[in-house]
Amino acid sequence: MAPGAKRGILERLKAGEIVLGDGGFVFALEKRGYVKAGPWTPEAAAEHPEAVRQLHREFLRAGSNVMQTFTFYASDDKLENRGNAVGFTGQQVNEAACDLARQVANEGDALVAGGVSQTPSYLSCKSETDVKAIFKKQMDVFIKKDVDFLIAEYFEHVEEAEWAVQVLKSTGKPVAASMCIGPKGDMHGVTPGDCAVRLVKAGADIVGVNCHFDPMTCVKTVAMMKAAVEKAGLKAHYMVQPLAYHTPDCNCQGFIDLPEFPFALEPRVLTRWDMQQYAREAFNAGIRYIGGCCGYEPYHIRAVAEELAQERGFLPEASKKHGMWGSGLEMHTKPWVRARARRDYWEKMKPASGRPLCPSMSTPDGWGVTKGDAALMQQKEATTKDQLRPLFEKADAKN
Amino acid sequence: MAPGAKRGILERLKAGEIVLGDGGFVFALEKRGYVKAGPWTPEAAAEHPEAVRQLHREFLRAGSNVMQTFTFYASDDKLENRGNAVGFTGQQVNEAACDLARQVANEGDALVAGGVSQTPSYLSCKSETDVKAIFKKQMDVFIKKDVDFLIAEYFEHVEEAEWAVQVLKSTGKPVAASMCIGPKGDMHGVTPGDCAVRLVKAGADIVGVNCHFDPMTCVKTVAMMKAAVEKAGLKAHYMVQPLAYHTPDCNCQGFIDLPEFPFALEPRVLTRWDMQQYAREAFNAGIRYIGGCCGYEPYHIRAVAEELAQERGFLPEASKKHGMWGSGLEMHTKPWVRARARRDYWEKMKPASGRPLCPSMSTPDGWGVTKGDAALMQQKEATTKDQLRPLFEKADAKN
Amino acid sequence: MAPGAKRGILERLKAGEIVLGDGGFVFALEKRGYVKAGPWTPEAAAEHPEAVRQLHREFLRAGSNVMQTFTFYASDDKLENRGNAVGFTGQQVNEAACDLARQVANEGDALVAGGVSQTPSYLSCKSETDVKAIFKKQMDVFIKKDVDFLIAEYFEHVEEAEWAVQVLKSTGKPVAASMCIGPKGDMHGVTPGDCAVRLVKAGADIVGVNCHFDPMTCVKTVAMMKAAVEKAGLKAHYMVQPLAYHTPDCNCQGFIDLPEFPFALEPRVLTRWDMQQYAREAFNAGIRYIGGCCGYEPYHIRAVAEELAQERGFLPEASKKHGMWGSGLEMHTKPWVRARARRDYWEKMKPASGRPLCPSMSTPDGWGVTKGDAALMQQKEATTKDQLRPLFEKADAKN
Amino acid sequence: MAPGAKRGILERLKAGEIVLGDGGFVFALEKRGYVKAGPWTPEAAAEHPEAVRQLHREFLRAGSNVMQTFTFYASDDKLENRGNAVGFTGQQVNEAACDLARQVANEGDALVAGGVSQTPSYLSCKSETDVKAIFKKQMDVFIKKDVDFLIAEYFEHVEEAEWAVQVLKSTGKPVAASMCIGPKGDMHGVTPGDCAVRLVKAGADIVGVNCHFDPMTCVKTVAMMKAAVEKAGLKAHYMVQPLAYHTPDCNCQGFIDLPEFPFALEPRVLTRWDMQQYAREAFNAGIRYIGGCCGYEPYHIRAVAEELAQERGFLPEASKKHGMWGSGLEMHTKPWVRARARRDYWEKMKPASGRPLCPSMSTPDGWGVTKGDAALMQQKEATTKDQLRPLFEKADAKN
Repeated sequence: MAPGAKRGILERLKAGEIVLGDGGFVFALEKRGYVKAGPWTPEAAAEHPEAVRQLHREFLRAGSNVMQTFTFYASDDKLENRGNAVGFTGQQVNEAACDLARQVANEGDALVAGGVSQTPSYLSCKSETDVKAIFKKQMDVFIKKDVDFLIAEYFEHVEEAEWAVQVLKSTGKPVAASMCIGPKGDMHGVTPGDCAVRLVKAGADIVGVNCHFDPMTCVKTVAMMKAAVEKAGLKAHYMVQPLAYHTPDCNCQGFIDLPEFPFALEPRVLTRWDMQQYAREAFNAGIRYIGGCCGYEPYHIRAVAEELAQERGFLPEASKKHGMWGSGLEMHTKPWVRARARRDYWEKMKPASGRPLCPSMSTPDGWGVTKGDAALMQQKEATTKDQLRPLFEKADAKN
Repeated sequence: MAPGAKRGILERLKAGEIVLGDGGFVFALEKRGYVKAGPWTPEAAAEHPEAVRQLHREFLRAGSNVMQTFTFYASDDKLENRGNAVGFTGQQVNEAACDLARQVANEGDALVAGGVSQTPSYLSCKSETDVKAIFKKQMDVFIKKDVDFLIAEYFEHVEEAEWAVQVLKSTGKPVAASMCIGPKGDMHGVTPGDCAVRLVKAGADIVGVNCHFDPMTCVKTVAMMKAAVEKAGLKAHYMVQPLAYHTPDCNCQGFIDLPEFPFALEPRVLTRWDMQQYAREAFNAGIRYIGGCCGYEPYHIRAVAEELAQERGFLPEASKKHGMWGSGLEMHTKPWVRARARRDYWEKMKPASGRPLCPSMSTPDGWGVTKGDAALMQQKEATTKDQLRPLFEKADAKN
Repeated sequence: MAPGAKRGILERLKAGEIVLGDGGFVFALEKRGYVKAGPWTPEAAAEHPEAVRQLHREFLRAGSNVMQTFTFYASDDKLENRGNAVGFTGQQVNEAACDLARQVANEGDALVAGGVSQTPSYLSCKSETDVKAIFKKQMDVFIKKDVDFLIAEYFEHVEEAEWAVQVLKSTGKPVAASMCIGPKGDMHGVTPGDCAVRLVKAGADIVGVNCHFDPMTCVKTVAMMKAAVEKAGLKAHYMVQPLAYHTPDCNCQGFIDLPEFPFALEPRVLTRWDMQQYAREAFNAGIRYIGGCCGYEPYHIRAVAEELAQERGFLPEASKKHGMWGSGLEMHTKPWVRARARRDYWEKMKPASGRPLCPSMSTPDGWGVTKGDAALMQQKEATTKDQLRPLFEKADAKN
Repeated sequence: MAPGAKRGILERLKAGEIVLGDGGFVFALEKRGYVKAGPWTPEAAAEHPEAVRQLHREFLRAGSNVMQTFTFYASDDKLENRGNAVGFTGQQVNEAACDLARQVANEGDALVAGGVSQTPSYLSCKSETDVKAIFKKQMDVFIKKDVDFLIAEYFEHVEEAEWAVQVLKSTGKPVAASMCIGPKGDMHGVTPGDCAVRLVKAGADIVGVNCHFDPMTCVKTVAMMKAAVEKAGLKAHYMVQPLAYHTPDCNCQGFIDLPEFPFALEPRVLTRWDMQQYAREAFNAGIRYIGGCCGYEPYHIRAVAEELAQERGFLPEASKKHGMWGSGLEMHTKPWVRARARRDYWEKMKPASGRPLCPSMSTPDGWGVTKGDAALMQQKEATTKDQLRPLFEKADAKN
């Protein structure tokens, strides 16, 4: 299908259709061996295109209507800041990412979304002009590659998100704005409702949240956004792209603060049944752009698609390899496993962790610092051993 | 590198080298949308070769020295038995799987292993001749495609495993035999030690276990095998390819019996740090063929490779995208996350499940039936609703 | 010491002294075999005085400054309502309870407090006159027996608590008013702050909460009361007598709604170290009347007394049988137990439940009904089997 | 009833009757403020007789047929060893304990059992003659006070238990011998079966285990004893008096090694329903002397009596204050609590800990030392700060 033949994101949302997002690429590709945790940069788009393409394709098969360019943290300053051992320029990475997203989008009914995210420059108190210039540079690629719409996502501070929306809006393409906040609001305490109103006023067509919190928390946060936008007499569409991790123990900064972040989050991964519950809640809350972020694997998006199959009118390609509600088990060798081939069984499941020496919740870290604090000034070099020592001591003193 | 140029599996093991296996394909590809849970058949080798090739490649990058052909349950009778909606013959699937494994093996220093596994025919009490004919059919492909060695894996009954070894041995290629049993032995109560002795006598060069139990349980089981083989005055090499799930609550039939199998095992997934501990234990137990099975993702194998980097003398390719013991976090934005950039932190980690309404262990199902019981006779059709009803009732009465 | 020689409750509180309450009698005596769970009536005061006296004495030794008469639910209508198989009149029970409390109070520096609690009549929508008459009847005994002060406690509705305070205030004795509510307020949604202001205006000298929630939740609730009373320009003293059970999973009606209530609360019991933390928090919040309710055993009050020993200037009698912070273990036989003889060890303790098949939190029941709902009309007879059946079915449908 | 009128312990057991023991006094009285944890000595028998009498009485009301004299660790050397601040002699404590037990036994159908337990002298490698002299001294009191039978309990080493049985047997009274071991046997690895056979040969009429492990583990251990005694062609009666704590995570030395011992065991306390299950299992295993040890409160023994009410033919006195299987809740105010008035509800209960930051199991301490190791030589003085420091460091290094 030619991209031109596809209906745009706003056209779909205005028609009341459900648009499925994809899952987060940095965590999925970290597990596959193509992204380095810590820097979290997306040079794999240029370095290992086959791996990025394959992940796009799996999300497409799972039901995603959006192929988000793998351009998270893909600004030159961030790439340098984080080592950039590989040597690709920001432009090369951004262009490669656009090409991959477009190629796979063309294999189905998906749109390409060019994405930008928060910058180290903002955290280091650079000026509005400086920060906007960074977004502008990525926009140049997105315009050249003619993406279908734009997403400003993963913002902890509404002010920076507004700046991003203003830059994106200037392109004339539809703009989605998504913050990585929970019900307590942004890092300076601005409520989700106020954030949403400001983003809509800045020009966002779609607002919502992504990352940092589990699905139910994110749905609750977007519901607060929706209520405030409507109360302000404004109009918008709503999106949600949460973690695939249970985070009942997070405070305002989300899973970053959990002691398990980022290398011991396994026990928190949502099951497909958790995902179906999430999809239903999101739909019931009036959210129509429903996707995922860190922790999502293709089967998580498929579960969202299966839960909403009736509303969407079809099942995704990958459901050919999945029996709804466990029905594939009807063919299992053991009779007591065949006895699990039913919705009732899986809906009531309270899965054990298999870890009797571990707790069910953690006490989040979080040193009460945010933008403006010296500890958050970004440097290009890795933290030195001398800089690390006091951090280790501070952390140990807390436990 | 030409395959002929590579040193064979026994050559490596005899030299005391560590050989890293790969992870299980059916679970990994189920999550990616290419394998159907329940049937668990590998038609994706022919149907979606790019997905299978990518997974091989990720394991290769993670450090695997063996590309196991994706031929689990790939016999004609099993494919038919399980629906085979797609329409490939067993031969087509087996050949495609061999080609994919060889292609990726050639990209690095890996060998190709042709694999067979237990048959529905054995469970349905077919004759030795009938069962061996099934293995023979797969062997024809493996010989034609000239795999480097053979693995008979995932056997619950030592008798069937012996039959398999006898067929495989007749090819003249090195033979590995791996059962899916724990310390309590096979489904008829034969101890791991007795199983191992019988398999070595049947011709196996390498013996061990795979699947069904968590890494520490599997290492313990192989240690029992090793002790018995040595006590019997025999010689063998040892392999272990466990689950990537914690299973402290399993009885003799392993994770199949857990109520969470197969769709709610997420909270049990091992972290990379658990994997390093496993690799060390396996090495200390004298096991030199160390890999994984269901639940493994490429980063799990990379963790094994990193733990044994000193012994092996090198790091895998994918470690370019991974800081040892969390060192990549030295470059993280938040100082309290930088404080986690150290071995001590991750080794002591007791990760929370994020599920306060869930227990830490489950009571396994398992109806005390095994080969010979009518409930285990295999039929080609999916179980009907009338057949399922009493199973559902029996299951509910237990809870 | 003659009772007249003692300083009164308000005298102590005005001087800034800490006053320690006792623990709840119905739960403690239920475990000892003298109170029946369900009716929860205090006929043991007349029927088994030695058991009630012993419990008073243990709390006195543990440091309690208040002997609360064991008169919970000791009104004639409640006694009848709940079967009263034993045959004592309300007056007999109330008088016996006063005598026991006085006898033990005289053995140390403790005051006697006469207590009333919420009535079935209020729940059944009886008139203010009817409800006040019930309180008046208990007052007659308390005046005759000359208790030192009065407590209206365990009220779920602020309106009924106000009525009680008005009756108690008419006696001229100091009045404490304590509701069994949490941060969400009373059963009709009146906030803790508003409840407190209304109770002070009704004449209460001391306000606070008891029962239904764990210590930290209760301290938080009283802190809300204190803030509101001060904001209203009023003056009061503050009391807190929480559960000895951890209740992180409760909604507005507290532990009644927990599925474990009342016969499976064991895993939730606070340790002595939890109690010390509670005592410190309560003190820091400006609360000076600090005691306990259901689940408290004498050692819990002793822990409160030990935590506040420096502020109070002395240790309780029972501390002769207790080493502070585990120091008694210095004499233990095993060296690894001697290694636990220190504050640091016990403060960091995260005690395991020993129940790997159980979760850490529950989903509370609670059918969203309160005073005014037909389901809460009280009848004198036990619920019949026919009345129970729909309750069982309703409950099962929820799980 | 005159004591002479009662049927003896062996008479009852030979007739196939169930004999209910009592619960442990040191833990129960520690919580009530009369015993010091660490020393664990029973001077309260002389110092606070009313408290000891009351606890006896509560167990009698709960259904106990045996009043065990509160003489645990009541030898002169142990009293001195552990400080004996109070100043009573061993003889005084032993005599007072006998009088209290007899007084309460006379209030019902209970027997008095004089008890001895393991000695610090044995642990310090004193001679057989020295150790036996200690037991002999306690026997003098028991004979003078004419107890009904004798119990040698809480022995970790079968050799010392044999010595005790030999001394006790010399009195001509029936002798019960109970070790504090689990399925792995005594501290020198003697199996439960071998221990039991040796104790029967030494003269014990009744053998079994007490303390250190949870009920199910203890029942399993006694079943091993019974099987071995029967296999040896000997005859005996069997007793079990376990902890009231869940200890799935213990190794051979039991709950002493748990990090929670002794001040954070609360979450492990068994519910009354757990106790009923225990009573049934013990009965089914052929054990007829069924009681409890540390952690037991009177309601735990009542639960045992209620479970076995049909077999015994009657309910205990305290059941007048308890509805079987929660039936007392039929009269509860809230309808959703009335819905819990049934066996099915409580039998399926999986009680939550209310502690989401805590695990469900612990890693036991235990430094692999036992009798003969220098670290276990007993000294009369409390361990000094200088002696404690290396213990603290050793403990910290393990975590």
